[in-house]
Amino acid sequence: MKKIIRGGTVVTASDTYQADVLIDQEKVIAIGESLDAEGAEIIDAAHCYLFPGGIDPHTHLSMPFGGTMTSDDFTTGTIAAAFGGTTSILDFCLSSKGQTLQEAIGIWHEKSRGKAVIDYGFHLMIAEANDAILEELGSVVEHEGITSLKVFMAYKNVLQADDETLFKTLIRAKEIGALVQVHAENGDVIDYLTQKAIAAGHTEPIYHALTRPPEAEGEATGRAIALTALADAQLYVVHVSCAQAVQRIAEAREKGWNIYGETCPQYLVLDIHELERPDFAGAKYVWSPPLREAWHQETLWSALGSGILQTIGSDHCPFNFVGQKELGRDDFRKIPNGGPIIEDRFGILFSEGVHAGRISLNQFVDVTSTKAAKLFGLFPKKGTIAIGSDADIVIFDPKATRVVSANTHHMNVDYNPFEGIKLQGDVVSVLSRGNFVIRERQYVGSTGAGQYLHRKRFAKP
Amino acid sequence: MKKIIRGGTVVTASDTYQADVLIDQEKVIAIGESLDAEGAEIIDAAHCYLFPGGIDPHTHLSMPFGGTMTSDDFTTGTIAAAFGGTTSILDFCLSSKGQTLQEAIGIWHEKSRGKAVIDYGFHLMIAEANDAILEELGSVVEHEGITSLKVFMAYKNVLQADDETLFKTLIRAKEIGALVQVHAENGDVIDYLTQKAIAAGHTEPIYHALTRPPEAEGEATGRAIALTALADAQLYVVHVSCAQAVQRIAEAREKGWNIYGETCPQYLVLDIHELERPDFAGAKYVWSPPLREAWHQETLWSALGSGILQTIGSDHCPFNFVGQKELGRDDFRKIPNGGPIIEDRFGILFSEGVHAGRISLNQFVDVTSTKAAKLFGLFPKKGTIAIGSDADIVIFDPKATRVVSANTHHMNVDYNPFEGIKLQGDVVSVLSRGNFVIRERQYVGSTGAGQYLHRKRFAKP
Amino acid sequence: MKKIIRGGTVVTASDTYQADVLIDQEKVIAIGESLDAEGAEIIDAAHCYLFPGGIDPHTHLSMPFGGTMTSDDFTTGTIAAAFGGTTSILDFCLSSKGQTLQEAIGIWHEKSRGKAVIDYGFHLMIAEANDAILEELGSVVEHEGITSLKVFMAYKNVLQADDETLFKTLIRAKEIGALVQVHAENGDVIDYLTQKAIAAGHTEPIYHALTRPPEAEGEATGRAIALTALADAQLYVVHVSCAQAVQRIAEAREKGWNIYGETCPQYLVLDIHELERPDFAGAKYVWSPPLREAWHQETLWSALGSGILQTIGSDHCPFNFVGQKELGRDDFRKIPNGGPIIEDRFGILFSEGVHAGRISLNQFVDVTSTKAAKLFGLFPKKGTIAIGSDADIVIFDPKATRVVSANTHHMNVDYNPFEGIKLQGDVVSVLSRGNFVIRERQYVGSTGAGQYLHRKRFAKP
Amino acid sequence: MKKIIRGGTVVTASDTYQADVLIDQEKVIAIGESLDAEGAEIIDAAHCYLFPGGIDPHTHLSMPFGGTMTSDDFTTGTIAAAFGGTTSILDFCLSSKGQTLQEAIGIWHEKSRGKAVIDYGFHLMIAEANDAILEELGSVVEHEGITSLKVFMAYKNVLQADDETLFKTLIRAKEIGALVQVHAENGDVIDYLTQKAIAAGHTEPIYHALTRPPEAEGEATGRAIALTALADAQLYVVHVSCAQAVQRIAEAREKGWNIYGETCPQYLVLDIHELERPDFAGAKYVWSPPLREAWHQETLWSALGSGILQTIGSDHCPFNFVGQKELGRDDFRKIPNGGPIIEDRFGILFSEGVHAGRISLNQFVDVTSTKAAKLFGLFPKKGTIAIGSDADIVIFDPKATRVVSANTHHMNVDYNPFEGIKLQGDVVSVLSRGNFVIRERQYVGSTGAGQYLHRKRFAKP
Repeated sequence: MKKIIRGGTVVTASDTYQADVLIDQEKVIAIGESLDAEGAEIIDAAHCYLFPGGIDPHTHLSMPFGGTMTSDDFTTGTIAAAFGGTTSILDFCLSSKGQTLQEAIGIWHEKSRGKAVIDYGFHLMIAEANDAILEELGSVVEHEGITSLKVFMAYKNVLQADDETLFKTLIRAKEIGALVQVHAENGDVIDYLTQKAIAAGHTEPIYHALTRPPEAEGEATGRAIALTALADAQLYVVHVSCAQAVQRIAEAREKGWNIYGETCPQYLVLDIHELERPDFAGAKYVWSPPLREAWHQETLWSALGSGILQTIGSDHCPFNFVGQKELGRDDFRKIPNGGPIIEDRFGILFSEGVHAGRISLNQFVDVTSTKAAKLFGLFPKKGTIAIGSDADIVIFDPKATRVVSANTHHMNVDYNPFEGIKLQGDVVSVLSRGNFVIRERQYVGSTGAGQYLHRKRFAKP
Repeated sequence: MKKIIRGGTVVTASDTYQADVLIDQEKVIAIGESLDAEGAEIIDAAHCYLFPGGIDPHTHLSMPFGGTMTSDDFTTGTIAAAFGGTTSILDFCLSSKGQTLQEAIGIWHEKSRGKAVIDYGFHLMIAEANDAILEELGSVVEHEGITSLKVFMAYKNVLQADDETLFKTLIRAKEIGALVQVHAENGDVIDYLTQKAIAAGHTEPIYHALTRPPEAEGEATGRAIALTALADAQLYVVHVSCAQAVQRIAEAREKGWNIYGETCPQYLVLDIHELERPDFAGAKYVWSPPLREAWHQETLWSALGSGILQTIGSDHCPFNFVGQKELGRDDFRKIPNGGPIIEDRFGILFSEGVHAGRISLNQFVDVTSTKAAKLFGLFPKKGTIAIGSDADIVIFDPKATRVVSANTHHMNVDYNPFEGIKLQGDVVSVLSRGNFVIRERQYVGSTGAGQYLHRKRFAKP
Repeated sequence: MKKIIRGGTVVTASDTYQADVLIDQEKVIAIGESLDAEGAEIIDAAHCYLFPGGIDPHTHLSMPFGGTMTSDDFTTGTIAAAFGGTTSILDFCLSSKGQTLQEAIGIWHEKSRGKAVIDYGFHLMIAEANDAILEELGSVVEHEGITSLKVFMAYKNVLQADDETLFKTLIRAKEIGALVQVHAENGDVIDYLTQKAIAAGHTEPIYHALTRPPEAEGEATGRAIALTALADAQLYVVHVSCAQAVQRIAEAREKGWNIYGETCPQYLVLDIHELERPDFAGAKYVWSPPLREAWHQETLWSALGSGILQTIGSDHCPFNFVGQKELGRDDFRKIPNGGPIIEDRFGILFSEGVHAGRISLNQFVDVTSTKAAKLFGLFPKKGTIAIGSDADIVIFDPKATRVVSANTHHMNVDYNPFEGIKLQGDVVSVLSRGNFVIRERQYVGSTGAGQYLHRKRFAKP
Repeated sequence: MKKIIRGGTVVTASDTYQADVLIDQEKVIAIGESLDAEGAEIIDAAHCYLFPGGIDPHTHLSMPFGGTMTSDDFTTGTIAAAFGGTTSILDFCLSSKGQTLQEAIGIWHEKSRGKAVIDYGFHLMIAEANDAILEELGSVVEHEGITSLKVFMAYKNVLQADDETLFKTLIRAKEIGALVQVHAENGDVIDYLTQKAIAAGHTEPIYHALTRPPEAEGEATGRAIALTALADAQLYVVHVSCAQAVQRIAEAREKGWNIYGETCPQYLVLDIHELERPDFAGAKYVWSPPLREAWHQETLWSALGSGILQTIGSDHCPFNFVGQKELGRDDFRKIPNGGPIIEDRFGILFSEGVHAGRISLNQFVDVTSTKAAKLFGLFPKKGTIAIGSDADIVIFDPKATRVVSANTHHMNVDYNPFEGIKLQGDVVSVLSRGNFVIRERQYVGSTGAGQYLHRKRFAKP
């Protein structure tokens, strides 16, 4: 069965041109002027952009956190993602000490099997780096196609790894072709500042941010970079939120080191003062790293524009306000960290980035899709509209507008941090491997249609 | 008349995939698997890369310099370019004080009309920035499609402009959508060091380099950047040769300023010690800026790889050793500055860049073609292989090898600075707007087939 | 005739201790506990600091500027200086093209001969650097003891020198042991921005500041540093006003280059918004470089504290508001640049620096006296309280307070930019070469008692 | 009993002048021309410098390390120090987990009581930062006068503290007026590289250096600085050995943070290739941090000259080659780290620093004595020659020369790392609190004459 998307403007990380796109089964097989194919279904895309499906490199679906669980599973989360123009996600598979990696991965396969409506893959968290784990990593890369390994420098006594673990992981990653990801905040500093704040009776949400200062992120970013340089390896810093971290990444890239950085929509458009909202509503904005003073936003946009940062993750980690965020009413430490972003990642970047003149159309594609595909071993299957690539395509109307709201979003959560923001541009239809998931703004996909992504080893893009 | 290039691997600044390319007249009209078109000529490109034709953003053809003239004109120069995989050039139109811009441009049209075998455009040198000139710039951009303006910070008493001229040009460029280019070396410093060297009896070629220290380039680069920031304009630093200049550009880009940089093959693979060759052979390596100590090369490659520098120009400025370079036998000041690079720019970048593992295949396309097209208002007509773009295509065999030599090159000059270097990869055929210029390594083009390029205004890429 | 200053606390750039100071004629000959000397006059200094007399390295007395003349001459200016704790000044001797240096210096000797009440020396401005001037510099250093040479990078078409002049001066200075001083602002940029502002009808004082942006100072500072590095010479940047300049100096010093910087009290405590005062009162705050946004002050204090900047000049350049500043009522370009600072330099640094906890007592002495003595070839004759040094001593009561006011100051000018500021600490008495100039807050000096200072060649401090 | 040192040239951190110095008992009571005092002993110092006695802020006497003990105790070590011009030392008191601080300090008092020939104080190592320890620190500062606290970032599983310990120590130090010192190397990195080297069969001394790369020092330095900034505290980085660490300190100081740095003579004049000496002689040069490539030396000298680094410690930590260093013949991990430097610290700085033109005479005094006194709460009792200060004075002949050798040195160790180096300048006599310890190059002191130094709280110098 063939389809022709007719009359749209194809946009890739490099190109923008009007053409028809011919899809056969799951793949794009031709792009050209006035294409025809016998029996092909014709899809009108006049006045629309055709974007490669978004790749969200940072999600947490059905993830346990502090005694509760993120409110989206692989079905609700991926449906919301699809509504927002995303056709692939990379979810973080947690592990814990004592567990084999295969056990940890098994649990994540369990969670996700038959549930996703778009394609999905896993990053793997490294909790410890003993010889058995380092050995097992070889087969994880080979047989599971998991080629990115996450190390936490924060969450003391819970997820935090020491420098030895990070360093060994980097050295091993170099050998096996994996990309190491870090949550870069100095957990020791944060832990102590948190204790001090609580001891002083400061329990409100804003203290979550005040006990996680930007320099604690800058320091950890610099440390991870130094260890990467010493290991001659490759590093991807997740959810960069502040100028202090950007500066360290910029300096490293100037030296030619293989350092990459991701930021998130929330850091680009929201600021620390959201945490001061009355009636505990600040809890809706509790992320780690926290929202920063507004001036950091300009630095982040500029870093995206000049290539210092390469990708946009959502860090989708949704918790309901009622019943979940509320756990921390009396103690900010008990507020589950994270928020629902998976659905609006793509739209915010278009509206606040492209429409507002901060990044170009091609940069938009690069940061929302292409670069993630390249860094995480999915390219050119994913991340572009090109011959032989998966027909993961977003038909996007730049003239349309929409207003973000929890009333209309598809995430399984009772608030939206971007509530009321008006966005320029809207997703009309979304194809995943040639099949509609969203058609004319309606969900037409099927649970379990999403396939697990066995990824390639890291190669410098 | 249609053509199908069959079986090659299309490479753009972002993508790499195997596909057939269908050309109708001058344009690419379809790309896909197993394309067919009635009556189309089939061109076999199996095992070959299909690259967008190279764009050389920095040439000097038939240019007067110090009483002599560069040895390639728009015919010999563009034939050599085509052999080397280049299908568009941007040549520097010189002007002088007292002249209207239109007069200067007229001379360059005269030189080039009916002569080029590939497409060509002009940058325009600004010798002074009085009100009449600034006014005239509006129509130059509008009617001539010349959207890049060159200012010299060196060559005291000859080409050198003062800061006022540069600053006014930047402010005007911002208004009219032009990109300002600088030759960034401090001419006052160089002039004095040159006088001192001559006074001390130092007349050999190496003193050309010793009297143009890296910090003189770094300073001027920093100054041009500061003026650009003050004007809120956009700047392109030509022929960056040293770490001192790279550092300034990196810092500016980290701040989000619109600063771009070009380097040249010679700075990437040759070093200052070439100027010490016996029997005055060092004169063959006299460029401005000069070749540097070898350690700078790593910085330049790294800057290309991390996006601090964006393009590769040849700064093609050929003079014969016999009769031209020899003018400076007794005084290095009289050695015409420049060398023949137009033919080997593309090949050296592939061999020393891609093959040697320093940049990726997509980065190669970006720096040799795409980014120049974007910065200089030629995109997407030039700089990519995409639907609707000009069919400027290089069929390139990555398995072939060739040895650079003046005996076999096509430039009208009696030496080659890369003599004897073995290159991996070779240009097989070259199409310019759908017509073969080079076919199976033979010239099949026609003088005058090249068209003048009327370019668009600057837009941030 | 001997004097003993008894019971004070001697403070030098390094030490703080209680002791008596024995003066014989013009020199300090002993320091110790309970000193005695037959027939010595005893001066009580209990509870007071004994500071080395301040050295103001930057004054403009009886200086012609834009058709008018600074309102203090060498008598009124030096009396005011003495009241403020300053016992030596270095005044800028202007020169012009066509003049010999000896002619220029002769005029300054003429102005000052028999007029000063404290010691004074000259810096020499270099207007051009032709062979005759460069040659003459040797004898200026040798016979006049003028070992610091000022070059202006601003004031286009008036005082501004080109890079060649600066570079030649640096190279010559290296040979003859002189320190080159620069007014570092890019005059070309300022000239053009000024023309644009006027053309747009912006004639108010605030436009003086708006047409001299910080980056114009940062650029020129960076350029002067680069030229100094290329000349392997030594540089002193006068009146540093902004973070952009501080950063360049810091980077240069980190590289081990001989770069020094001076700031002024006005940049430490006043900001750009003073220029917006109503009724043209903003004109009282017109300096070049201009006052900056307040956040720069913290950078300047920090640079003093960490040794990035070394000295405090007053840049005393007084013009009456009535009749002088008023010349620019309709055009900010006609406002004479400068203000009356010579009397309050020392006191502001003590109050806002030491008392406010920003610098230590020893740093206060270093930046107001010692380092200037060392950089300008006056040490150890001046700049310290030590055996054999001139008895230039300030008896200072740290407990006293005073309020700055034009009603009570001794400068020959009708306003004070620090009007109403309350200062902690006050000068009680001042000795110049063992003789009282100020005694118990009364002037007791004599016109002409000040001697011309023949200075030593530059040596790295 | 009084003494007059006659005819010498007094040198302080700021001043240089010829004068007599009158000592009464332990103190300097007068300085002046031709001093006299009844019954005073006259000491001739013509042609000699009078320096404040050196303060060595970094020694390890009778310190256990890896099953052995440093070979100098408080008697042999302080005699050697005195021969070398040092009159005060600060020795590191080690502590261990489970111990109270008072217990640890008690052991160090035990070691040193009645043994030293010059004055001595202690720094205190912090092994853990639990509430009891943090509480106890208050009384350590108050009652023991120990106002500097050392934290190790290296020596994993032995001395290494985690970031929490460092951070808590910094915050507590801020409250109680102590200066935190760090050994800044990333112990996790070093530990792993060491294991890898051993596993690969690399047991030779050079691998000690190769497994401790400069970036591991740079990283830890940057981390300690970041934590200090977050704590708004003060930090002193001991034994800085490389450009990577210097750069971090420079950047921090440019920001106005209270960061100080010490380097050591060995890093200024020796390089990594010493560790390659045959017959295991490389073991004599095993320090942590290790010796670096020679180019780092220039950076360190430059940092001393421009005030980025403030002090010179010896890190005296002597082990005999025979019987001690030899423990590591088959495994570099077993080579005791450290070397004998206490005697030559002062002389090397004069010869290689002042005589070689790298630092000035006053800077020499500052880095070998004054700044350490100021940073460690000993000023003005120690660190200067001034009225009321201890008469700790070195009579130094700048014209004399000596050759360093184990045959003639006074340290209790069988080799000297500077063996054979000829030094310009020599210590003639040394007074400690007015009494000769060394007189005309002979030891005339007495065991136990050295007093324990109860120090003041930290104040910004």
